[in-house]
Amino acid sequence: MRIALLGGTGDIAEGLVLRWSKAGHEIFIGSRSDEKAKGIAAEYIEKLKVHGIEPRIHGMPNADAAKHAEVVIISIPPEHAAATVSQIRDSFTDQVVVTPVVSMKREGKTFLFNPPAQGSSALEIKAALPETAKLVSAYHNLPAKELSEIDKTLDYDVVICGDDDGAKEIVKKLTEDMPNLRVLDAGSLEVSSMIESMTPLIVNLNVRYKPQHFSVKFV
Amino acid sequence: MRIALLGGTGDIAEGLVLRWSKAGHEIFIGSRSDEKAKGIAAEYIEKLKVHGIEPRIHGMPNADAAKHAEVVIISIPPEHAAATVSQIRDSFTDQVVVTPVVSMKREGKTFLFNPPAQGSSALEIKAALPETAKLVSAYHNLPAKELSEIDKTLDYDVVICGDDDGAKEIVKKLTEDMPNLRVLDAGSLEVSSMIESMTPLIVNLNVRYKPQHFSVKFV
Repeated sequence: MRIALLGGTGDIAEGLVLRWSKAGHEIFIGSRSDEKAKGIAAEYIEKLKVHGIEPRIHGMPNADAAKHAEVVIISIPPEHAAATVSQIRDSFTDQVVVTPVVSMKREGKTFLFNPPAQGSSALEIKAALPETAKLVSAYHNLPAKELSEIDKTLDYDVVICGDDDGAKEIVKKLTEDMPNLRVLDAGSLEVSSMIESMTPLIVNLNVRYKPQHFSVKFV
Repeated sequence: MRIALLGGTGDIAEGLVLRWSKAGHEIFIGSRSDEKAKGIAAEYIEKLKVHGIEPRIHGMPNADAAKHAEVVIISIPPEHAAATVSQIRDSFTDQVVVTPVVSMKREGKTFLFNPPAQGSSALEIKAALPETAKLVSAYHNLPAKELSEIDKTLDYDVVICGDDDGAKEIVKKLTEDMPNLRVLDAGSLEVSSMIESMTPLIVNLNVRYKPQHFSVKFV
């Protein structure tokens, strides 16, 4: 598939780009700056060549990346995510849009869930998108480091939610391209706050049980 | 230890009573009605005798059960939990108090986290307790049915939080009396909302993936 990663640097973006490239997908890295996007794309291409993979990865401004793609991952920090989507609103038609965005605040050593007024980052981003776009909330709790080690098997669960079953099916298939991730569908987009709030909980556990890096499995 | 279960019927109370009795603890079942509490206690004693266990289980009004105990489990529905604690406030001194309380609401087929004004049931109950009581938030996501099958090994994580390290250590030891539960300490009581909100998420998964009954493990 043609997959865009807006703000395609850092955190889970690298692992997703590398693993989806390995699975044969075409990737569009979006950034505010065309130059930065092309630079990141070149870095990912180099990393994949080391693994003997000849990827199709392109760098371009966010709006163009979104237009080229069937699936758009909003890999943007929470304070900018909805505003960025709003700025390039005209680039979205009926794509599947995926939000892994979680808004947290820190009080002393404690991380707390700090959702926007809508109740979750997913609902905030939904309000910024045209109604034709199909938003799925997913990938909040993937361990970034292990995700970027592309030969490593990931025995974790990815809990997703969204209002469009077809879009969730596409996200499920893309997720299963990354062995052995399992998708669990928790229902409508409204439940995203309960998925998002697991992230600060896991961050608190990671701080307390360092160097352990937790992800979640439902058993 | 001397453990009280206020509102000791239903859900996880049965499993906790049976397993802690098996581990040799003395149990005080509390209820609004002395007669009801004694009836429940008699039922639990019968169930344990089948397993060859001679338990020490007593039924009595909530206030008396709390006074007898070193550890008090608030096994009361969310709409009554804080009010019940408030009514018997004088029964609490420096006990360890454990809240597994989660407030949810249902919209159609979807369960949503529906915390009280304080942000979590734990913080609501803390406000109802005297300051000397040591509140720990725990046991929100134990699968009730498996918990009550006392010979069954439970390979799950129990995420706890609270402001008193000694109290959390006691809850950790009591939890480890139930093989193979593992306790993960997520920090101060303030993080309880993030633990509590996992419950409606898991309920939604259980509804969608019936007959699977999920609990959680951090890996």
